[in-house]
Amino acid sequence: MTKINKAAIIGGGVIGAGWAARLLLNGIDVAISDPDPEAERKVEAVMKNARRAYDGMTDKRPKEGKLSFARSIAEAVEKADLIQESVPERLDIKHKVLAEIDKHAKTDALVGSSTSGIKPTDMQTAMKNPGRLIVAHPFNPVYLLPLVEIVGGEQTDAATIVRAKALYASIGMKPVVIRKEIEAFVGDRLLEAAWREALWLVKDGITTVEELDDIMRYSFGLRWAQMGMFQVYRIAGGEAGMRHFMAQFGPCLKWPWTKLMDVPEFNDELVDLIARQSDEQAGDYSIRELERIRDDNLVAIMQALSKTEHKHGKGWGAGALHRDYVEALEKRAGKDK
Amino acid sequence: MTKINKAAIIGGGVIGAGWAARLLLNGIDVAISDPDPEAERKVEAVMKNARRAYDGMTDKRPKEGKLSFARSIAEAVEKADLIQESVPERLDIKHKVLAEIDKHAKTDALVGSSTSGIKPTDMQTAMKNPGRLIVAHPFNPVYLLPLVEIVGGEQTDAATIVRAKALYASIGMKPVVIRKEIEAFVGDRLLEAAWREALWLVKDGITTVEELDDIMRYSFGLRWAQMGMFQVYRIAGGEAGMRHFMAQFGPCLKWPWTKLMDVPEFNDELVDLIARQSDEQAGDYSIRELERIRDDNLVAIMQALSKTEHKHGKGWGAGALHRDYVEALEKRAGKDK
Repeated sequence: MTKINKAAIIGGGVIGAGWAARLLLNGIDVAISDPDPEAERKVEAVMKNARRAYDGMTDKRPKEGKLSFARSIAEAVEKADLIQESVPERLDIKHKVLAEIDKHAKTDALVGSSTSGIKPTDMQTAMKNPGRLIVAHPFNPVYLLPLVEIVGGEQTDAATIVRAKALYASIGMKPVVIRKEIEAFVGDRLLEAAWREALWLVKDGITTVEELDDIMRYSFGLRWAQMGMFQVYRIAGGEAGMRHFMAQFGPCLKWPWTKLMDVPEFNDELVDLIARQSDEQAGDYSIRELERIRDDNLVAIMQALSKTEHKHGKGWGAGALHRDYVEALEKRAGKDK
Repeated sequence: MTKINKAAIIGGGVIGAGWAARLLLNGIDVAISDPDPEAERKVEAVMKNARRAYDGMTDKRPKEGKLSFARSIAEAVEKADLIQESVPERLDIKHKVLAEIDKHAKTDALVGSSTSGIKPTDMQTAMKNPGRLIVAHPFNPVYLLPLVEIVGGEQTDAATIVRAKALYASIGMKPVVIRKEIEAFVGDRLLEAAWREALWLVKDGITTVEELDDIMRYSFGLRWAQMGMFQVYRIAGGEAGMRHFMAQFGPCLKWPWTKLMDVPEFNDELVDLIARQSDEQAGDYSIRELERIRDDNLVAIMQALSKTEHKHGKGWGAGALHRDYVEALEKRAGKDK
């Protein structure tokens, strides 16, 4: 079964609400369970942004799924084919929530955890039916960014990985299976490395947060929207390719080109410095305005990539996927009529 | 004087040729000095790509500058307003070349070094007129990516920094001045951090180079083409902003979320593994084809960003700069007629 008829979202924060938005906009019914009395308002704010972004992608959206707020996890997971857990990043909370999901979910339901860092092996000990648990780690905003990292634990069934790939692909995502389970998986490892270096650079007064952001978005950010670092470096090697590049830049590993061997002390002074500079950078833009700008740009970039005719005439990188996704949404919209 | 009438390029590799292309396509005469007998062929290959990319940006390109190959550094720098050094990354070579440039250049010429890592203070010791030296570190492809990191050394005149900003901006670039001189500056520090982590992830078999590249370009690469990491995290903090984000993710610094405390051994086995996976990833695409795909995508992404109406109706991030740049090129083309 690669069709999701009903999904349950456990935890309705930024990530949970982003999942809900993606599912609803694909015409799938969603039940949310979240103890926060503000959850309904917060999810509605995310839905508003998400609808706006999808309207920018197509003028033929499918009929939205039905959204409901459940009074309990048990009620939310009833009849759900996909259950996505996005509760706070504490193992004791994950255990409690996963045990509850496990108790009430359909036997054939897929259970995905949005955790950014915890290994599935450490979470599935709380479940009687652990074979159906995977980590399905998305990126914010979940309704637009295609990537989902799929990570199985020691007790995850091989068939669960296969099914997860199909289910997440069916809602326009790009599932990438991580070959071995490690904390923080792959995307967040790279982000954490860059983040640690960035904290040093700002703390040491080499650059401000705004200058650092400009350095990223006027250079390698433009490259990484379409090719990752290995493909970029292959090209940088010129006619001699990857082996030449590695021979040329390998020795840098021995040079003092990073402060990563040490971790900056995370004290109030550093938080204040960065928060103050971030306020200055944001200027008059509110978080909501910045979200809309971000979403407009993401859609525009994916549309731009979908217009290059390289990959089977479908666009490069996320462009091909984006084109397929928009076509699938429009096809579904046609059927709804 | 913020107009470059003639430029000299010392070292015609990938970076030197990229500088030559940007300058020539801005209508500026360029003299190249490079001992490589293949230099002329290699520069022409880069020019071919660059012309193609600029044709994608506008159908009104200015008349190209005149390109010449000089027999010596002395001949190349004659009458040059801007001299850009892009020779191999060895301090002894830099010293020799900079001394030669210094000896023959006009007194008021600006000398920029393309070094990725060496501090200007360590280079300017070879010069009698060290006040005019700065590092002007670009990103590949130089004819398209706007960023140039400007770094002064202990002996650099304050006026040189001001002038460098104006000169590089006059050829469509985004100069960002680095506040304190450190090895590798800012961009390459962030790249080096991500690169080291990536080497571990591939070496340990967590992911392949192709999967890792997909993880980047389907997620945070799309974000970083428009906003840098601090602005992105500000938004991720939700309504509570940057301070909330830092409180939430600060503790990760103490978790085992990276292998950066150690450096992977850079041996033949690792080079072979990565080169082989890179070959598989590239498939049937040659380096030249990948370059054209990259360039098409860069132009498309910057054009896409130039169409969002946020920043004074000019587009977001590199979009505003891109729009200004294309307008400036077209204006110059009009004058050429």
